[in-house]
Amino acid sequence: MVKVVILGQGYVASIFASGLEKIKAGKMEPYGVPLADELPIKIKDIEIVGSYDVDKAKVGKDLYEVVKAYDPEAPESLKGITIRKGVHLRSLRNLPLEATGLEDEMTLKEAVEHLVSEWKELGAEGFINVCTTEAFVPFGNKEELEKAIAEDNRDRLTATQVYAYAVAQYAKEVGGAAFVNAIPTLIANDPAFVELAKESNMVIFGDDGATGATPLTADILSHLAQRNRYVLDIAQFNIGGNQDFLALTDKERNKSKEFTKSSIVKDLLGYDAPHYIKPTGFLEPLGDKKFIAMHIEYVSFNGAHDELVITGRINDSPALAGLLVDLARLGKIALEKKAFGTVYEVNAFYMKNPGPKEMPNIPRIIAHEKMRTWAGLKPRWL
Amino acid sequence: MVKVVILGQGYVASIFASGLEKIKAGKMEPYGVPLADELPIKIKDIEIVGSYDVDKAKVGKDLYEVVKAYDPEAPESLKGITIRKGVHLRSLRNLPLEATGLEDEMTLKEAVEHLVSEWKELGAEGFINVCTTEAFVPFGNKEELEKAIAEDNRDRLTATQVYAYAVAQYAKEVGGAAFVNAIPTLIANDPAFVELAKESNMVIFGDDGATGATPLTADILSHLAQRNRYVLDIAQFNIGGNQDFLALTDKERNKSKEFTKSSIVKDLLGYDAPHYIKPTGFLEPLGDKKFIAMHIEYVSFNGAHDELVITGRINDSPALAGLLVDLARLGKIALEKKAFGTVYEVNAFYMKNPGPKEMPNIPRIIAHEKMRTWAGLKPRWL
Amino acid sequence: MVKVVILGQGYVASIFASGLEKIKAGKMEPYGVPLADELPIKIKDIEIVGSYDVDKAKVGKDLYEVVKAYDPEAPESLKGITIRKGVHLRSLRNLPLEATGLEDEMTLKEAVEHLVSEWKELGAEGFINVCTTEAFVPFGNKEELEKAIAEDNRDRLTATQVYAYAVAQYAKEVGGAAFVNAIPTLIANDPAFVELAKESNMVIFGDDGATGATPLTADILSHLAQRNRYVLDIAQFNIGGNQDFLALTDKERNKSKEFTKSSIVKDLLGYDAPHYIKPTGFLEPLGDKKFIAMHIEYVSFNGAHDELVITGRINDSPALAGLLVDLARLGKIALEKKAFGTVYEVNAFYMKNPGPKEMPNIPRIIAHEKMRTWAGLKPRWL
Amino acid sequence: MVKVVILGQGYVASIFASGLEKIKAGKMEPYGVPLADELPIKIKDIEIVGSYDVDKAKVGKDLYEVVKAYDPEAPESLKGITIRKGVHLRSLRNLPLEATGLEDEMTLKEAVEHLVSEWKELGAEGFINVCTTEAFVPFGNKEELEKAIAEDNRDRLTATQVYAYAVAQYAKEVGGAAFVNAIPTLIANDPAFVELAKESNMVIFGDDGATGATPLTADILSHLAQRNRYVLDIAQFNIGGNQDFLALTDKERNKSKEFTKSSIVKDLLGYDAPHYIKPTGFLEPLGDKKFIAMHIEYVSFNGAHDELVITGRINDSPALAGLLVDLARLGKIALEKKAFGTVYEVNAFYMKNPGPKEMPNIPRIIAHEKMRTWAGLKPRWL
Repeated sequence: MVKVVILGQGYVASIFASGLEKIKAGKMEPYGVPLADELPIKIKDIEIVGSYDVDKAKVGKDLYEVVKAYDPEAPESLKGITIRKGVHLRSLRNLPLEATGLEDEMTLKEAVEHLVSEWKELGAEGFINVCTTEAFVPFGNKEELEKAIAEDNRDRLTATQVYAYAVAQYAKEVGGAAFVNAIPTLIANDPAFVELAKESNMVIFGDDGATGATPLTADILSHLAQRNRYVLDIAQFNIGGNQDFLALTDKERNKSKEFTKSSIVKDLLGYDAPHYIKPTGFLEPLGDKKFIAMHIEYVSFNGAHDELVITGRINDSPALAGLLVDLARLGKIALEKKAFGTVYEVNAFYMKNPGPKEMPNIPRIIAHEKMRTWAGLKPRWL
Repeated sequence: MVKVVILGQGYVASIFASGLEKIKAGKMEPYGVPLADELPIKIKDIEIVGSYDVDKAKVGKDLYEVVKAYDPEAPESLKGITIRKGVHLRSLRNLPLEATGLEDEMTLKEAVEHLVSEWKELGAEGFINVCTTEAFVPFGNKEELEKAIAEDNRDRLTATQVYAYAVAQYAKEVGGAAFVNAIPTLIANDPAFVELAKESNMVIFGDDGATGATPLTADILSHLAQRNRYVLDIAQFNIGGNQDFLALTDKERNKSKEFTKSSIVKDLLGYDAPHYIKPTGFLEPLGDKKFIAMHIEYVSFNGAHDELVITGRINDSPALAGLLVDLARLGKIALEKKAFGTVYEVNAFYMKNPGPKEMPNIPRIIAHEKMRTWAGLKPRWL
Repeated sequence: MVKVVILGQGYVASIFASGLEKIKAGKMEPYGVPLADELPIKIKDIEIVGSYDVDKAKVGKDLYEVVKAYDPEAPESLKGITIRKGVHLRSLRNLPLEATGLEDEMTLKEAVEHLVSEWKELGAEGFINVCTTEAFVPFGNKEELEKAIAEDNRDRLTATQVYAYAVAQYAKEVGGAAFVNAIPTLIANDPAFVELAKESNMVIFGDDGATGATPLTADILSHLAQRNRYVLDIAQFNIGGNQDFLALTDKERNKSKEFTKSSIVKDLLGYDAPHYIKPTGFLEPLGDKKFIAMHIEYVSFNGAHDELVITGRINDSPALAGLLVDLARLGKIALEKKAFGTVYEVNAFYMKNPGPKEMPNIPRIIAHEKMRTWAGLKPRWL
Repeated sequence: MVKVVILGQGYVASIFASGLEKIKAGKMEPYGVPLADELPIKIKDIEIVGSYDVDKAKVGKDLYEVVKAYDPEAPESLKGITIRKGVHLRSLRNLPLEATGLEDEMTLKEAVEHLVSEWKELGAEGFINVCTTEAFVPFGNKEELEKAIAEDNRDRLTATQVYAYAVAQYAKEVGGAAFVNAIPTLIANDPAFVELAKESNMVIFGDDGATGATPLTADILSHLAQRNRYVLDIAQFNIGGNQDFLALTDKERNKSKEFTKSSIVKDLLGYDAPHYIKPTGFLEPLGDKKFIAMHIEYVSFNGAHDELVITGRINDSPALAGLLVDLARLGKIALEKKAFGTVYEVNAFYMKNPGPKEMPNIPRIIAHEKMRTWAGLKPRWL
């Protein structure tokens, strides 16, 4: 059994909840869940015990009602969990939503204590952070982070940072907890949090779930690198109509994507081929099914120039939600292994920006095999 | 030093010869050569010592003249080698070329002896077979093959089969030789030849050089498999304007492509997703730079349907020629290791249809690392 | 009011029937119907009065039941029409269906009389031919056609040819009828039928409904021609999973597509740019939503080479069905105008192979305006 | 004969000059020139008599030297024209170039007089404005414009506006001159300039040469509109490596593209389908050959959803340069016709933003025919 708390009950979390329940009920195949039922902890062992949000229209509502807005075929087994109030700290800024958060009524320190006490009640083991993309600055060292909390510094902290801090306090008190950071805010890549995790019996997976075009780009670049083809340039566009794309039209937030290892190109090719890789725009009717377009030009043998173009329509939220079904379980496995801090073997496959900070991107196809080995499974092809 | 004989001085062999000389002269980077100069045998150690063809317009000409027709910037260092007469056995059937071959003057057995004696003179160590795609039937056992040669059975044998047989005879006499089969005719996948190779000090690499869309498809399918995305269908088209595409308009030959492990889809996905993967047509102005188009549809988490489309312009001959620069050297390394028969570790990365017969396709990204290990190099990411 | 009889109750005819009823009931917008409700004859004026097929599993069934197999949301207003037995003449050859036809019980001449008498009962005004693609040979002159009917020459005639002949007999007797030939068999391009139509008060629209990639190609080629860009080559693939694609895997039928004005390229560019434009394959899971891929390479100013690639997923049957909603009404308008024979102004926009035989393809964007003018509507942009 | 002065000797103007001379010398086909040699004024009748720039590295150099930097095969017949100093007014802001302009030495009024006097010497008849994209604000009425010049208001005016004003003065004095505005600054769409032109014997063509993806989009949207397909959304990206794309990374300039009739979508579809159509980024190795990607989703008959994706590599400068070869000649024809002000028939085909202000975009395929008629040529298909 893994008891899971959701932080941010938006599109991804709702598809996660809906798909999970359908699989548990035997009504759907576990497609999109990389490890399906290979792990000792089965999909049916995952139990959602709590959910937090800061959208006034969601807080206090039943989970089923919220999920249904994203997936009309949400199963009724989701009924019975009430969305609780979390922390926002400007995370809904510029979005067409009204925010409500614990910090409206208390200090951040008090909010942390409030959350910890709720989580004890819920018996939470894993936390899945799928808040809206935030404008943030990493801390770098633990002292700065602790100071910001102590001083109630609301301009310095983001919701994700407060949540991760609260999970650390909780883990310390109850003997262990896992925090899956699926959004771009640096947590597994912020030494402040990794250090804190190590001394708090906390496991961090992060950062930024590896969905969409980036992991595919990674494997295609690896493919070219292995043939010693010289990449001249890479252009990659993404456009979508969900709230994540809307949030990225907010320039400050978009910058937060820039902390993403732009070194993915250099990590895989061995040189920094000129590239333009960016979420590009918001186009409402595309909905959650984004359109991607990628162009790669390279030099082959005898100076020949080749070109590849990849386009696609990809459902954004299900791609991430499927990974979360693994990550929830791998979190518990990491706790059992006492792998406190962060786990590169897991991050390298599941995350766009695999922590810890100093570690590189590697081809996903190879990362997958390493992750399997870490999780005690046989590699598929190695 | 590796002394190499070319069998079939067409587009691929000419780009191979031209690019090789340019790299040796320091005038070009070894792009498209997967192992570049990482091997103990360097690119400059490769020496072309002989070349065979059956096109009346080529036999007797200087190698430089022939190469220049394919690459106007062919280096003059190619001068001094005269194209010798090989064996055709209908391989130019339906092509707008006049064929001339040793079999016009002697039996196949005599032709084999003739070739062996020429190769002794040349001191050949490696043979690169880049004949035109043939209509063929594999032998299955050595006795059938030997019988066909003995009986001068010209309807049963193809040029590639006769060449491979001759190389075996040569290897037995001189103590070792490598045969790189870069075309679809089954040699490394024909137990008849593998058996013959083992008892003849011969190394076979094959079959069908892994260029173009197929290895990329392999890595993309692996990418999807690792995320447990359920592939609904795969369509892949190729159209080009070089002689290889012209040859494939000949229906009988096209069938020979069908012996290619159509199991690539099953090998990588674990199930046989419906697919249409075929060279599609000949369109002269495309020349050697083929156009590829691929469509893949799959199911992601919570039943979401995604689609990928990959298109590209890829120079066909350089893609294969670059691999040959490695294969020529790996052949010699295999001889040094006495790895007689065929070498799956090499084939799995470099070949569309990796022999021996019973072995599967695996993701190319992983095959590359295994091949490096086999060759005594450090893996890059494992 | 236009009373319409359907010949071939397959995918296209079923989507036509279903969509038509939904629009008539105000439940759906007339998207995909070029002239929507601009014509004096409104969409709600179209009434399906009869339907013919030769699939044993369909003949005798209620139209509603048959349509529902193609569109689960078929409206119940389709109930009450029974599928009647038509003529097959090998049109189901090599398809996984059991055929039944009037010719199994009588001569073709008798079948024609039988049909004419049924149609009189139904009061039919327009006939929509959407049979399966046939292997056929055009007649060229009326005498040959009449002879084939008289001699009951079943090897010479196809179902479409017999239907068209029967409609001519019917039109002569009742004073007028329109035959819309939406499949590749040449009718509007066969002088035999055009001549027959003129003397029988019959209007023919044809041949081969302009759906899918071809009309788009036409407009893109016109776009390039108007800028005097020199087209080097055109490759166009189509792959689908409906019965029409399955039928085209039958080589003989596929040839019938070759009578299609391959001169579309020459008509629009003014020279015959090398091209490969073909339906390519059958891939069942694609269903009715085909995948198209097109590559065009051209020379621009100062010798620059440009490339365009167009890919898409296009629902095959709705694209044609929407055109039929116009053609049914334009047929009646042509009868009112006594435009017996065939009407190039209509064909040039709606048909891949616009009859009569000697007439060229023109840009669809211009053809549309001319067709509007013919139909008494104001051009939109001229 | 048409005597032409170039304003802005960058990539487009250099390809224009180079290609023009090659065609005149019979060394190149007039591909990319829509009207080729159909006009009474032939291509060989165009003579470049002067060229202006504000890049310190270009002013004072020979035209041949400048053109050669863009086209290594520039013909020597370009020798003998010296690049003269123009007006910059911040047009090189944020670009890696040092600017030099007449306004550094005199008032704008004096600069205008200086230019007029030079042009009289040169006997100029047509002016081709291909300056770098500018940040600008249109004037709206003539008085404002005249006031800005009189007051030497350098913050209000852009180089293009000053050039257009100067050409008006020149036209008034010599009896006629044509100004072709191939960049986004509104001139033909600014009533201030159209009014000025009418009273000055000046012809304006503009604004913003219709190259790249936009006119193709126009024709594809028209194609869909004519079939009454309901467009759900349109995404269009462009990325390139020439100076024009670099300039657009400057946010203020990029905004100037926004004055472009965003109503192209509404003009052609009849409703404002949600769209994202923007130049997206700068990627140096792409050079002048930009990469475009477009995605269009629409509803067809019976509620079916279709998708089209168009990608391409398009040489930016030659596409525009080819149009200029027509526009230079059409300018003279307009002068002969005394069509002072602006000419919608010409603009509708050749310009992204066809003036005058109140006129809509129409399908290019139709605009082409109307333009031919205006120019005294037979339409091709009407």
